[in-house]
Amino acid sequence: MSVATDSNQENRLLRLQAILDSGALKEAGRLLNGLAPAEIAHLLEALPPTERELLWGLVDESQDGEILLLVTDEVRADLIRRMNPEEILNAVGGLELDDLADLVQDLPGAITREVMDSLDVQHRKRLEAVLSYPEDTAGGLMNTDTVTVRAEVTLDVVLRYLRRLGEQMPRDTDLLFVVNRYDDYLGVLRLSELVTRDPEDTVAEAMSLNLQPIPADTDAAEVARRFERLDLISAPVADENGKLLGRITIDDVVDIIREEGEHAFMGQAGLSEEEDMFAPVLVSARRRAVWLGVNLLTAFLASWVIGLFQPTLEKVVALAVLMPIVASMGGIAGSQTLTLAIRGIALGQLTGKNARQLMLKELAVGAINGAAWALVVAIVAGVWFSSLQIATLIGVAIVINLIFAAFSGALLPLLLERVGVDPALAGSVLLTTVTDVVGFLAFLGLATLTLV
Amino acid sequence: MSVATDSNQENRLLRLQAILDSGALKEAGRLLNGLAPAEIAHLLEALPPTERELLWGLVDESQDGEILLLVTDEVRADLIRRMNPEEILNAVGGLELDDLADLVQDLPGAITREVMDSLDVQHRKRLEAVLSYPEDTAGGLMNTDTVTVRAEVTLDVVLRYLRRLGEQMPRDTDLLFVVNRYDDYLGVLRLSELVTRDPEDTVAEAMSLNLQPIPADTDAAEVARRFERLDLISAPVADENGKLLGRITIDDVVDIIREEGEHAFMGQAGLSEEEDMFAPVLVSARRRAVWLGVNLLTAFLASWVIGLFQPTLEKVVALAVLMPIVASMGGIAGSQTLTLAIRGIALGQLTGKNARQLMLKELAVGAINGAAWALVVAIVAGVWFSSLQIATLIGVAIVINLIFAAFSGALLPLLLERVGVDPALAGSVLLTTVTDVVGFLAFLGLATLTLV
Repeated sequence: MSVATDSNQENRLLRLQAILDSGALKEAGRLLNGLAPAEIAHLLEALPPTERELLWGLVDESQDGEILLLVTDEVRADLIRRMNPEEILNAVGGLELDDLADLVQDLPGAITREVMDSLDVQHRKRLEAVLSYPEDTAGGLMNTDTVTVRAEVTLDVVLRYLRRLGEQMPRDTDLLFVVNRYDDYLGVLRLSELVTRDPEDTVAEAMSLNLQPIPADTDAAEVARRFERLDLISAPVADENGKLLGRITIDDVVDIIREEGEHAFMGQAGLSEEEDMFAPVLVSARRRAVWLGVNLLTAFLASWVIGLFQPTLEKVVALAVLMPIVASMGGIAGSQTLTLAIRGIALGQLTGKNARQLMLKELAVGAINGAAWALVVAIVAGVWFSSLQIATLIGVAIVINLIFAAFSGALLPLLLERVGVDPALAGSVLLTTVTDVVGFLAFLGLATLTLV
Repeated sequence: MSVATDSNQENRLLRLQAILDSGALKEAGRLLNGLAPAEIAHLLEALPPTERELLWGLVDESQDGEILLLVTDEVRADLIRRMNPEEILNAVGGLELDDLADLVQDLPGAITREVMDSLDVQHRKRLEAVLSYPEDTAGGLMNTDTVTVRAEVTLDVVLRYLRRLGEQMPRDTDLLFVVNRYDDYLGVLRLSELVTRDPEDTVAEAMSLNLQPIPADTDAAEVARRFERLDLISAPVADENGKLLGRITIDDVVDIIREEGEHAFMGQAGLSEEEDMFAPVLVSARRRAVWLGVNLLTAFLASWVIGLFQPTLEKVVALAVLMPIVASMGGIAGSQTLTLAIRGIALGQLTGKNARQLMLKELAVGAINGAAWALVVAIVAGVWFSSLQIATLIGVAIVINLIFAAFSGALLPLLLERVGVDPALAGSVLLTTVTDVVGFLAFLGLATLTLV
């Protein structure tokens, strides 16, 4: 048994590109075979449009549905655009219900109706149940493929039931759900209990009662946090009356956590975590233009502030040379506080009283670093322009700006959160506006008062 | 059965803070009881130093070890500092081996030796095996609590073996490992197969062969990607000869994915994902000072470039007013490309040929957005300063800077990656340096050539 070494995604990508370049499509098709759908999805995301279309044509049709689920939203839309209705219907045919629910929302309307019509009554009802919850809630995430057992039967009966179920047992089943005849959720029977306990024990004796069901309207982020806190692999979802609706499995939660991380990271640059690296140039340009426009407004605001001090700048041109330093130090210090606060909010760890304490701490950090670096900058600037006045000016301006930066870095995300705006998206633009304006105002304003 | 509503972390935090404020420690202790260790860890992270110490004192000693594992590195160090050696020894007593391995590295040297001495030979050997691999590899992540079976026995024999094992079956066991007498890894037997197949089938018939073991020296990020690609709950780890060493479970992988996301997000502000929100002011200040210093160097570089054009600025002060706009547009556009490239690299999707294609695409996006926004800025600036020359100048400078920004945004992270520097950490500083310098140089340089 040799240890696998072909797992390196990069090598595979390089190899595949070489094959696609050489036009040896059969060989590329063979390389694709034996890969997991998630691996093919990953490769598709990494390929530019032409190669992506080529590769998508080589993928075995039976894998299409699974792969569509796994690529990012944008790549999915791109792939669906290249398929005809019949191919789409075939692709979604074999999917699980929660997956189908995810996909249906991205399909053209006519095809959605056809998909719904192709399901039997029970499946259609279940699909409608999942679709009735927003995509980013427990109800929208859940699958309805729960295996349920009654509390009063013995484990032996359960084992015989599972053997009859055979291959129909849903994947990622680590536990069975115990319900009464009204489908009220009672508890879970872990497979590990089932196989280690005496078969004569009843389900009631072997089941765990301490796994609370997740309310269907719970936010996806909260679902992920609960899985992390309790180290869950799957968990029950229930309606407001405690009736079992379905279950959520860890693979969906892993996706949520990955997307949360990407959302925070990409959001800082005004990008969506669903952004396709190889989206068409015009689409990318239009999307980015919005963010550039927003930032242009804040840049004009900063310029306008500078413009207020034109007479001063005309007299002391050294101010124009040094003013970016004041703004930049404030921006960097502020973004550190902002980043800390955004993470605290995302983890539910920043709220009420400790927000005040964080702000006090950050103000102290800002004051210390402001004083320390103000001294360094003052010395350099003073020597550069042989002026004690300029040295004093820039030092004081930096201290003022770093304290303001700490204050707004801690306050802005909390305010944004309260008014329902995502701090990961809007935080850095607003913060830069504050640190630019305050920086220029402090530096040039003080100069106008003392130098002119 | 009522659906749980007390899961809201924020409410719990607010309640706990109110109780701590009122001094009703018994009540706080009661609130802590019944919480999962991960929940207590989460609360500890969210509390400022004084309250954290108070709460830590209230935590039941039997939970100490589990909680130490779950808090971030910095908070862990803080908590360990507050414990005496005996408390530490008690805390780590009941831990699983992979967890103990994580913790041992953070303990004072004398206590590590005592912990090692307290283990029996078999456990000490296993712990040493885990410790012999770096913490961020498959070997460092793995646990050695594998349940192994032989291929030739029947499922019925396996079931009887598991029943004898009873409570000793490790948690998160979704599959058993099939090995031969030399401990060579052969395949896995899923519990879901075990409970759904005929008990007279042999393990050889029921086992899956398609789960490749993870080599022990595999990087943690690659382990996480493999779990995601293959939707794994647990996976075998083997040495270079294919001998089974241990297993990795999804809970550790979830931590890796969470940390990867935080690393990219926090890294952009020069912070570590392990940063304690309530680290002592002086510690925070010192750590942030480094990042501010690095950024100060780039700010001075930009200032020096501006300084080269002092005579020009003295004559046309409008240039000083407008120059931050050129730099800022370049910085924003560049950081969008940079962010996309860093994610591509992190996911292993950006390499070789498609890197060139990404760069071409980003250059096109930069040129289009450069032209579009250059026009807007030119009109505004032209009207503001009633000068066609200034309008032309700033327009051309913006186009130049946005094209340069796209170029460096795509190239920098690839170069950094190649020389072994983390692009998520160094990328944004270097990029801002480029866009500032190029922006000021283009704008003021062109002005010097044409206006003066």
